[in-house]
Amino acid sequence: MTFSFVVEAEVPGTPIRAGRLQTPHGEVKTPAFMPVGTQGTVKGLRPEEVRAAGAQMILANAYHLYLRPGSRRVKTLGGLHRFMHWEHPILTDSGGFQLFSLVSTMSIGDEGVEFRSHVDGSRHFWRPEDSIAVQEDLGADIIMAFDQPVALPAPREQVEEALERTLSWARRSLEAKTRSDQALFGIVQGGLEEDLRRQGARELRKMPFAGYAVGGLSVGEGEEEMYRVLEWTVPELPWEKPRYLMGVGLPRNLVEGVRRGIDLFDCVLPTRMGRTGTALLPGGRLNLRNAAFAEDPRPIQEDCDCYTCRHFSRGYLRHLVLAREILGLGLVSLHNVRFLIRLMEAMRQAILQGEFWPWLEKFYEEDGREVEP
Amino acid sequence: MTFSFVVEAEVPGTPIRAGRLQTPHGEVKTPAFMPVGTQGTVKGLRPEEVRAAGAQMILANAYHLYLRPGSRRVKTLGGLHRFMHWEHPILTDSGGFQLFSLVSTMSIGDEGVEFRSHVDGSRHFWRPEDSIAVQEDLGADIIMAFDQPVALPAPREQVEEALERTLSWARRSLEAKTRSDQALFGIVQGGLEEDLRRQGARELRKMPFAGYAVGGLSVGEGEEEMYRVLEWTVPELPWEKPRYLMGVGLPRNLVEGVRRGIDLFDCVLPTRMGRTGTALLPGGRLNLRNAAFAEDPRPIQEDCDCYTCRHFSRGYLRHLVLAREILGLGLVSLHNVRFLIRLMEAMRQAILQGEFWPWLEKFYEEDGREVEP
Repeated sequence: MTFSFVVEAEVPGTPIRAGRLQTPHGEVKTPAFMPVGTQGTVKGLRPEEVRAAGAQMILANAYHLYLRPGSRRVKTLGGLHRFMHWEHPILTDSGGFQLFSLVSTMSIGDEGVEFRSHVDGSRHFWRPEDSIAVQEDLGADIIMAFDQPVALPAPREQVEEALERTLSWARRSLEAKTRSDQALFGIVQGGLEEDLRRQGARELRKMPFAGYAVGGLSVGEGEEEMYRVLEWTVPELPWEKPRYLMGVGLPRNLVEGVRRGIDLFDCVLPTRMGRTGTALLPGGRLNLRNAAFAEDPRPIQEDCDCYTCRHFSRGYLRHLVLAREILGLGLVSLHNVRFLIRLMEAMRQAILQGEFWPWLEKFYEEDGREVEP
Repeated sequence: MTFSFVVEAEVPGTPIRAGRLQTPHGEVKTPAFMPVGTQGTVKGLRPEEVRAAGAQMILANAYHLYLRPGSRRVKTLGGLHRFMHWEHPILTDSGGFQLFSLVSTMSIGDEGVEFRSHVDGSRHFWRPEDSIAVQEDLGADIIMAFDQPVALPAPREQVEEALERTLSWARRSLEAKTRSDQALFGIVQGGLEEDLRRQGARELRKMPFAGYAVGGLSVGEGEEEMYRVLEWTVPELPWEKPRYLMGVGLPRNLVEGVRRGIDLFDCVLPTRMGRTGTALLPGGRLNLRNAAFAEDPRPIQEDCDCYTCRHFSRGYLRHLVLAREILGLGLVSLHNVRFLIRLMEAMRQAILQGEFWPWLEKFYEEDGREVEP
């Protein structure tokens, strides 16, 4: 079997677990964070740097790569792994979220979505079958069902309609899939409505997906609402399949996601913050533009093992950011990626060693917050 | 002795030679090309990548680093080598050329140059002594005398005045120097006037410089004029000292410089071209934006050993350039740096093996030009 997921350890009485996900391009030890390479590159970083930062799987976007350079073109050039020189696991998002968040002119019907390219304004029509065909051309290890998120908060009828459509598109995505070397994940929608989230998860688990994502979050709802949605949804999902919380990457959200049974995460946060000269630290952030760092010989984080922290001072990084030197963006992004991946590695270790609760307490001490009951 | 230069091989009856320049941070095998790290970073590249591309010494600019982040600050942070994580030889330019080319409001007198910062408009006054003090704070292995270039073509009186000032400032630069772990090079000026160039070189060789640069070229004169200046100047310089042609980096200019006895070169060309998506090739250039490369699986250059050519297709690089992804700028710059350094390595090998003339013929066959008599 090309794909498998095994749960290696659990925290008793909770949905928290550590596992291993096998894919044609290698293994992913969970819980895991995926850096985002929207256009076929994790912004500002070399593939080897992303790997050296501990990344096991990265995310790319079917929508972006379909428009530019074109998914047929990526296929012609050997598929996404070879194209971007990342011979490790890749997951592609289906485009559902991108059509919903990036594209202004569009009409959504039961058949599919009509949209204008954000690159050149050209018109396109995507059915679930088109998203799957594009993702098969790209050739990622894990592909996602075509879904319809809604902006939150939203009226219940709108959430209901989007959920119905998402479930219908999930079935069509499964039927459209032809490649046996790709695993297809379903996406649970349902807004902030408990019954809709539970219903969405129950319907999806009847379908033979290789894994399940919780979608439509991190789009304007509060953190507590996000956590509630996870508490409703995760128990309805099949225990033996990986669970993926889409688009989430704030350190404490990763921790609270793992606490609620999530195995996989992705987010642009570390690279987007890096490009503004903002570095992640335990319990906070460092704005490297700050004059206080002008002569600071210390690395961003004293005990960090990333390339940036091993070789460069805050003073130098501040200089690069202020002088608008490209190197600065890459170095800060690299630290941020490593920071989130170290967080995931620490949680995984704590789970495997039966020490998740003491670890969590320590995390919140550093994060400057109380451990919630 | 911390510094030494030995000539290892010569082409009989010519000023062409291969040598070794010893510095406190290691050896430079000549002829050599120095990538430019104006602001303390070779634009878009990691220090390890620059090294892996074969760079032995890089150039940084006293003027830029004095203004931002401040040369005292660089000293506080451990000096330029540690600051930018390049523990190999560095050469700093004195600021003479930058004041002349970047700064609009200034007045030049015999004492020094008054100028406004191109960063924040603040007023500064630099005497030769100030340039040396700044370069001592930065701590490069090789530092340059403060000089005054002129825009070419220029009236003879203007060239004469600038040469006189350059010679006076050269003496003052030597007197101002205090560090024994830095070598100071003089800069020959004299525009396009044969007698002035010869006089400039003869005066400078009386002063105890560790090496000699030919300055004020590549600023608007034609290539043939540049070559003539080298033919006048190089024979007047002491044979046993390294010779450095400043700001030159076109492949055929490097070849013609070596042919006229030059040991060292620097230029922003490979990184500046890289940032526009233009790649160097034998006998030409590749504009990676060209639609012809959209599905081209080949590397930029089939027989190139650089990181970019070993892992990435023209199709992928074109995509990165069109999508304005930072990675593209770095990858193309890296190829270009490696391209020029391979050219230098090939010339050095040809000189050492007594095969410079056949090598030159082959170079011009590939370059699509006749070997000049």
